[in-house]
Amino acid sequence: MDRRTFIKASTVLTASQSISATAQQHDDAAAAHMRMMNTLPPDAPKIAMLIYPQMVAMDLVGPLTIFNVARFDTRLVWKSTSPVMTVEGLPFAARHSFDDCPSDIDVLFVPGGTMGTIECMNDPVVLRFLAERGAKAKWVTSVCTGGLVLGAAGLLVGYDATAHWAVADLLPLMGARHVDQRVVRDRNRMTGGGVTAGIDFALALVADMRAGEAARRAALTVEYAPAPPVQSGTPQQAGPARTAAMRQSRAWMDEQARRAAEQAGRRLGTA
Amino acid sequence: MDRRTFIKASTVLTASQSISATAQQHDDAAAAHMRMMNTLPPDAPKIAMLIYPQMVAMDLVGPLTIFNVARFDTRLVWKSTSPVMTVEGLPFAARHSFDDCPSDIDVLFVPGGTMGTIECMNDPVVLRFLAERGAKAKWVTSVCTGGLVLGAAGLLVGYDATAHWAVADLLPLMGARHVDQRVVRDRNRMTGGGVTAGIDFALALVADMRAGEAARRAALTVEYAPAPPVQSGTPQQAGPARTAAMRQSRAWMDEQARRAAEQAGRRLGTA
Repeated sequence: MDRRTFIKASTVLTASQSISATAQQHDDAAAAHMRMMNTLPPDAPKIAMLIYPQMVAMDLVGPLTIFNVARFDTRLVWKSTSPVMTVEGLPFAARHSFDDCPSDIDVLFVPGGTMGTIECMNDPVVLRFLAERGAKAKWVTSVCTGGLVLGAAGLLVGYDATAHWAVADLLPLMGARHVDQRVVRDRNRMTGGGVTAGIDFALALVADMRAGEAARRAALTVEYAPAPPVQSGTPQQAGPARTAAMRQSRAWMDEQARRAAEQAGRRLGTA
Repeated sequence: MDRRTFIKASTVLTASQSISATAQQHDDAAAAHMRMMNTLPPDAPKIAMLIYPQMVAMDLVGPLTIFNVARFDTRLVWKSTSPVMTVEGLPFAARHSFDDCPSDIDVLFVPGGTMGTIECMNDPVVLRFLAERGAKAKWVTSVCTGGLVLGAAGLLVGYDATAHWAVADLLPLMGARHVDQRVVRDRNRMTGGGVTAGIDFALALVADMRAGEAARRAALTVEYAPAPPVQSGTPQQAGPARTAAMRQSRAWMDEQARRAAEQAGRRLGTA
């Protein structure tokens, strides 16, 4: 081999070694990244999150996103692992059936929805599961109309709580005291208002179960510095005319919720 | 039949007629409610929303929830209708494949994610679909790192835009001017910052395509009066130490995004 051929060959060799070393480093870095993304800390809180037909997707996904960023161990649960259809037409599937859900969960969480929520309030199988797991969980939590389901399961008797503004006045029928705040905490109950309150709720829970620092990191990850383009998120902000029109448009559904709450109250001896 | 028996029988009959009439009214009301929930207005804007593996669930679900409440016609699209796995482990399935997506969509929307976003930036099939539909859509929109995918498809050349704070500085490589706002609008482009900015983005788009009133009603429905329990949603709020730590933890991924943006820039002649 002459000098020129040697140099050329060695250059190719070096280059290919270098490419291979770079690829190896890339693979190592990729693997490390994936490990970091996919491995939960051993003390990650276990959260059982109920899903059900005709739930509001964001009631689940807001908190799920925050809990995922905070490296909590999130488990979607329902009667079966067959997909359920959300209000938005996006199917969700549970990873655990009720029977298969660990009994030592740290947090029980119930999202809200439309008619599916009311069916849960009337469904003994759902209510029994929630009452059993809720009795043992460190935290019993909800967002939106999910608070009514906790109430129907008897989990809010004697507690301060909230729910979506349109139905929060039904909570007292099931023994709770309605407190008109976006997130209400009373001992180990934490309940949020309608839909988007789930983000504030989840950050508050992360701050409590971990530390304020974990919540601040999560907020930075999801760029949570809200800037609503309209100021109309509460009946107070929206004003009486708009609120009355909205109540009117959902009157039939809210009446079904009232009946379910009254029925639950009779079972619980609170209505 | 004596008088007493007659009265008793007629009472039972009346009661059962009354129950049956109530049930009928209930069914009618239920049917009307369901019709209202499930029927879109004939002029509902058609929104094609991209989904893909390793996307961030909330990047889609925030806007989807607002658009659904505002009665927009939302269509999830991907290469196929097989489920894709989100970062949170929640599978999503498209209703339309690329071939099957209507060509006359009003809005094209791209959510963000982690490594899946970068794969989209490097995927000619995805980029061709976006470029074609984007050229004809009334609005071309994104949230979070979805802005990088629009950029890689050549849809932001010469436009003001934003993306998740950690990678928004890559937009100029693909011919866009980065404007550091939560929602950036330039002609028919509307792009949002990270994850939770999707709610603000969607309300702004609803206000523009419908009216401020539609956005205000949507905000009331989802109780959008945010009250963050921590003030840490931007690098400014979080401070330099926390921001540097976060950049460090995602350095490998953001480097892959940079390479994809540079490659796209070379294709577009902008880098």
